[in-house]
Amino acid sequence: MRIHVINPNSTASMTAQIAHAAEAARAEGTVIEAVTSIGGPASIEGYSDEAMAVPAMLAAIRSAEARGASAHVIACFDDPGLAAAREVASGPVIGICQAAVQVAVTVAARFSVITTLPRSVPVIEDLIAHYGAAARCRRVRAVDLPVLALEANPATARTRLLAEARAALREDGVDAIVLGCAGMAELCDWLSRETGVPVIDGVTAAVKLAEALAGGGFRTSKVGAYAFPRDKTGDQVGAAGPAR
Amino acid sequence: MRIHVINPNSTASMTAQIAHAAEAARAEGTVIEAVTSIGGPASIEGYSDEAMAVPAMLAAIRSAEARGASAHVIACFDDPGLAAAREVASGPVIGICQAAVQVAVTVAARFSVITTLPRSVPVIEDLIAHYGAAARCRRVRAVDLPVLALEANPATARTRLLAEARAALREDGVDAIVLGCAGMAELCDWLSRETGVPVIDGVTAAVKLAEALAGGGFRTSKVGAYAFPRDKTGDQVGAAGPAR
Amino acid sequence: MRIHVINPNSTASMTAQIAHAAEAARAEGTVIEAVTSIGGPASIEGYSDEAMAVPAMLAAIRSAEARGASAHVIACFDDPGLAAAREVASGPVIGICQAAVQVAVTVAARFSVITTLPRSVPVIEDLIAHYGAAARCRRVRAVDLPVLALEANPATARTRLLAEARAALREDGVDAIVLGCAGMAELCDWLSRETGVPVIDGVTAAVKLAEALAGGGFRTSKVGAYAFPRDKTGDQVGAAGPAR
Amino acid sequence: MRIHVINPNSTASMTAQIAHAAEAARAEGTVIEAVTSIGGPASIEGYSDEAMAVPAMLAAIRSAEARGASAHVIACFDDPGLAAAREVASGPVIGICQAAVQVAVTVAARFSVITTLPRSVPVIEDLIAHYGAAARCRRVRAVDLPVLALEANPATARTRLLAEARAALREDGVDAIVLGCAGMAELCDWLSRETGVPVIDGVTAAVKLAEALAGGGFRTSKVGAYAFPRDKTGDQVGAAGPAR
Amino acid sequence: MRIHVINPNSTASMTAQIAHAAEAARAEGTVIEAVTSIGGPASIEGYSDEAMAVPAMLAAIRSAEARGASAHVIACFDDPGLAAAREVASGPVIGICQAAVQVAVTVAARFSVITTLPRSVPVIEDLIAHYGAAARCRRVRAVDLPVLALEANPATARTRLLAEARAALREDGVDAIVLGCAGMAELCDWLSRETGVPVIDGVTAAVKLAEALAGGGFRTSKVGAYAFPRDKTGDQVGAAGPAR
Amino acid sequence: MRIHVINPNSTASMTAQIAHAAEAARAEGTVIEAVTSIGGPASIEGYSDEAMAVPAMLAAIRSAEARGASAHVIACFDDPGLAAAREVASGPVIGICQAAVQVAVTVAARFSVITTLPRSVPVIEDLIAHYGAAARCRRVRAVDLPVLALEANPATARTRLLAEARAALREDGVDAIVLGCAGMAELCDWLSRETGVPVIDGVTAAVKLAEALAGGGFRTSKVGAYAFPRDKTGDQVGAAGPAR
Repeated sequence: MRIHVINPNSTASMTAQIAHAAEAARAEGTVIEAVTSIGGPASIEGYSDEAMAVPAMLAAIRSAEARGASAHVIACFDDPGLAAAREVASGPVIGICQAAVQVAVTVAARFSVITTLPRSVPVIEDLIAHYGAAARCRRVRAVDLPVLALEANPATARTRLLAEARAALREDGVDAIVLGCAGMAELCDWLSRETGVPVIDGVTAAVKLAEALAGGGFRTSKVGAYAFPRDKTGDQVGAAGPAR
Repeated sequence: MRIHVINPNSTASMTAQIAHAAEAARAEGTVIEAVTSIGGPASIEGYSDEAMAVPAMLAAIRSAEARGASAHVIACFDDPGLAAAREVASGPVIGICQAAVQVAVTVAARFSVITTLPRSVPVIEDLIAHYGAAARCRRVRAVDLPVLALEANPATARTRLLAEARAALREDGVDAIVLGCAGMAELCDWLSRETGVPVIDGVTAAVKLAEALAGGGFRTSKVGAYAFPRDKTGDQVGAAGPAR
Repeated sequence: MRIHVINPNSTASMTAQIAHAAEAARAEGTVIEAVTSIGGPASIEGYSDEAMAVPAMLAAIRSAEARGASAHVIACFDDPGLAAAREVASGPVIGICQAAVQVAVTVAARFSVITTLPRSVPVIEDLIAHYGAAARCRRVRAVDLPVLALEANPATARTRLLAEARAALREDGVDAIVLGCAGMAELCDWLSRETGVPVIDGVTAAVKLAEALAGGGFRTSKVGAYAFPRDKTGDQVGAAGPAR
Repeated sequence: MRIHVINPNSTASMTAQIAHAAEAARAEGTVIEAVTSIGGPASIEGYSDEAMAVPAMLAAIRSAEARGASAHVIACFDDPGLAAAREVASGPVIGICQAAVQVAVTVAARFSVITTLPRSVPVIEDLIAHYGAAARCRRVRAVDLPVLALEANPATARTRLLAEARAALREDGVDAIVLGCAGMAELCDWLSRETGVPVIDGVTAAVKLAEALAGGGFRTSKVGAYAFPRDKTGDQVGAAGPAR
Repeated sequence: MRIHVINPNSTASMTAQIAHAAEAARAEGTVIEAVTSIGGPASIEGYSDEAMAVPAMLAAIRSAEARGASAHVIACFDDPGLAAAREVASGPVIGICQAAVQVAVTVAARFSVITTLPRSVPVIEDLIAHYGAAARCRRVRAVDLPVLALEANPATARTRLLAEARAALREDGVDAIVLGCAGMAELCDWLSRETGVPVIDGVTAAVKLAEALAGGGFRTSKVGAYAFPRDKTGDQVGAAGPAR
Repeated sequence: MRIHVINPNSTASMTAQIAHAAEAARAEGTVIEAVTSIGGPASIEGYSDEAMAVPAMLAAIRSAEARGASAHVIACFDDPGLAAAREVASGPVIGICQAAVQVAVTVAARFSVITTLPRSVPVIEDLIAHYGAAARCRRVRAVDLPVLALEANPATARTRLLAEARAALREDGVDAIVLGCAGMAELCDWLSRETGVPVIDGVTAAVKLAEALAGGGFRTSKVGAYAFPRDKTGDQVGAAGPAR
């Protein structure tokens, strides 16, 4: 089984870190194909970064499908272009936010998310609500560090992440923490040991769910909203018949 | 006041139709600047079309801001890239779906939407839920014609639109109809006369709301999720200070 | 275009202030007709004040319709009698709470409301939930001053309003503030300058939306829940036929 | 224990019917005081009828409190003025819609409501959503007869009510029926026998809940949103102190 | 009328306290039959305690039905086995959480719950959401004492309960307090006097609602989800006909 | 990795069928331990069947934990005792309904469920709402056959299942079908071929998710609502200290 893990931003060192987490998570026999999206923004911190990242990401997904990928993981916690990716793929497509949420509601009654920048808080809140987990997510918190500073300033990142995690346990009454950025993956085990609760990294969660879905033979429905994009040749001269 | 109306698809004849509706709706003194998004898909029928359309649309918004636009209208009923556009603009940005919904909940207790293709039904349902109007929207219906066929086959379009509108009144118990595609704008008055209920065209609704917001001095908040994208220069060498 | 702005309480000085805000907001060519509801309570601070205000307000709306009003604005943040007003009017009817919320969700991702008395907090929370914006409104706050004290004690009002606004930015993580009382209209620009975020006054928002809806030709549906009240003459002798 | 049952419309024959149902439902020792609201509309069929009925109803509630009423029942299925009534009363106030819904969710997993006119359908849907029972109410149906025609045309009323009830069982998959008008009370037992499922009359439900609440010593909270209306004397000269 | 009050845990002293509260609440003519569930856990503090308590509780309900019980009260705030109990009973079955919530939303606009252990907080939050009252319940708080410690350490219980109640009034902005454990019943009047707001004990609420439902002739629907369990004899040899 | 698959009903032939589906789904290296719950009901068709099944199921889970199970699958679509099981287990516990829903929202935009008996429809609807997927599940349908008749009357089962699936595609506008009973597992591939859309069997989904969670090192949080049941020895003599 080949799992295509796409980093939708263009920072190769971040892809390397994602690949490392994915390799650590994969089952025997799974091949991880970690790819940096060429031409995307250096990091994804908000809606326009997401938007700028998606076209190249869709191309990468099409290309990975052609090379025989069994499933795709979008390794950015905003799940940019997730629905669009499902449209162009026939294998299952897993967003790391949705994956982390599915794991969190399975192993904990209540969780909080810790992300990078405050501006991402409403983005992630809306995602979680869209995934139907608003009632189980107590709060989305931010360490107030840019995505790339996680890597550049690891000591600061650790200090702030631990402080927010402890605040979540103390104030939010949660049983688990979800890491709200792909770039936090390598801090997962450490933070779990420090806090004594499950800490869920979306990259790990997504790789495991990708293996699960591909292994179970589940594929994206090609009827309805996730059907392949229509070929529009001839639309303008216009056959009036049904378009489905 | 200059209202920038962007057609996020690349079909110029559709821009012309949108411009026509916008011109008919504008107040005296408003200048409509209708623009075709260069490089977008020929029509927007699903998530990947949306995704492919947004980067060019954001560029068009930046460019219109530089030329002094007071507000922006995204003239596609999927409201593609609406949040991203709010991030790059300082003037208000109006999506025609959100505008139509805001008008509908003001003039009617219950409404149904009629769009083009069945694949767009869940897309629009999710949008309307995100806008908080799920309880007031009875149903999203589709005429099962591609976007461009509306123009190419006007007789078929009218026949099917009227049939769906009558079905909505009879089966859904609604007081108003929302047209779920920018390309239906010119059928609005006719359909209202045929059915006897308000029929809401998103282009008209959005132009009027754009005038209202710009005229009222309302501008997009530049604090929080809609703040301008951050300048990331130097992130990798990494100042650990607050990023806000 | 004539916009009928009804102050549903009987305090003329408050009508004057509302009229002032409406005049400042109106477009060229719009005539503002600001009316004090004769016989209503001195201020509206809760459900029974609302209830006592509505009959006179409906009479004022009918009268304004007869004089040719294009649209109606109910200038009380509880939106008292909004649905009833839509029933008796054929032009669009705008409540200042609903208008402020529609503007807020257009220009900001998250907002908080600041109102007068704590007892109004659940009233406004329920309204906002009914308008579908519960997920975007972080909190409804109160300065703990009666409506009329805003005018009688302007210095206290400013001090408390600013304190609550700063608390909202600091604790609630919002990008915009909504003023939760028509009597706060004149503090809007000042508060926006002090806080650096959009501050939304419902009177301004409602006047602009009223112009937008009337200007766009949108009228209240007269089918369904907002149809004119039925003539009940003869009901008791009872034709059993359909009543619609 | 004295239960004040107020018919908020001015039709005495309807009060008589309501009184009859209330008498049949009351426990030994309970005194039913059924009152017609003087000056209300002949029947309540929509929002403006509700609005016109409430001021007189509030006066009746104040008067009944003064006479020693233990609890109040508002005998109209739209629950007009329910929150306002709670503000002016110290005893519990029961709306027949809320009461019927509380009973329905106790004895059945899913229910449908049958009311009089189609225009009341959204009114009742919104009430039920506000009461938190949207997920348990399958559908609000209408027999398409005015309120007063129920009495004037009993045969038609029965025929249509039975047809709708059977449709509800067949199409909606419900376990119980709620009667959506105080004027249907006397058809309750008959309809239950005909359909074999619990049929819930709001007047009966409300009288029993009023006895329960008054008997249990529960009284309306006089702190917060249901506190007595404030005395506004002196507001304009304005003490700036806390108003609570 | 005979009300069967079942304590689903096996602690007889707790049954005695529940019986005391039920006796104090019952109307003249009501017989309270308080029963300790034989074989249940000593107290119910979480999901597995609930699960272990239910089979014996269902047997007790069947047995009480056979002895002629008019209604059943499940005297544990988690409402364990409520739906199952409705399936095996023909009389109405009242859970003390659902009863307390129904009373709370009738007498107050906003309430908070105070329960025993922090681990029960999500359990009760989910129940309240399921009952449709999430928007009216501000917060579920815990005194952090085991159920049985309420009785064993009454002074500590009072101190902590009062502290949480005051915190609820100060921080949550509520008008009423709901006691989140059957073992708190006897502290109800005292806490109401100390705080000045309605304090709602679920046992009292449930006994009164049980009388109301039984007295009003309401019985559990035996069609649909609450129908008696099917007799499965012969299923395996399998008549393929409809099973309803 | 050892996955404990518990059939909570006592019908061994059904365990055999579940084991067959689990074996077909498992990855290389996974050992499936399929167990029949001793003492449960013959099939689970409603709330009291669920309640009667859970105690034995919890014992089975404890026993499997002691034998070294990596994860647990509850193989009944009502997910009976899921939260309780999470309390007693330290490995992840997967319910087949929750698993099927998680897969469905990953591979399809809208789905319908097909279960056995109409009485289970509200049970499953409430579960799906609790899992946050109400907006994505169009409808829960029933073939109106008892659980055990699926096996006893395979031809009837196939005919009715296909008819409901086709109705779901035609009327509900779905892109995928979820099988709402563990006993339907072996019809999954056939139904997918017949309908052309993904058909999701909960047993398969749950086995794959169990492997994913166990393989990813995710374990049930032992803090908060899923903490192990407290040892209550000494509660009655009552240490008043914190119980957490």
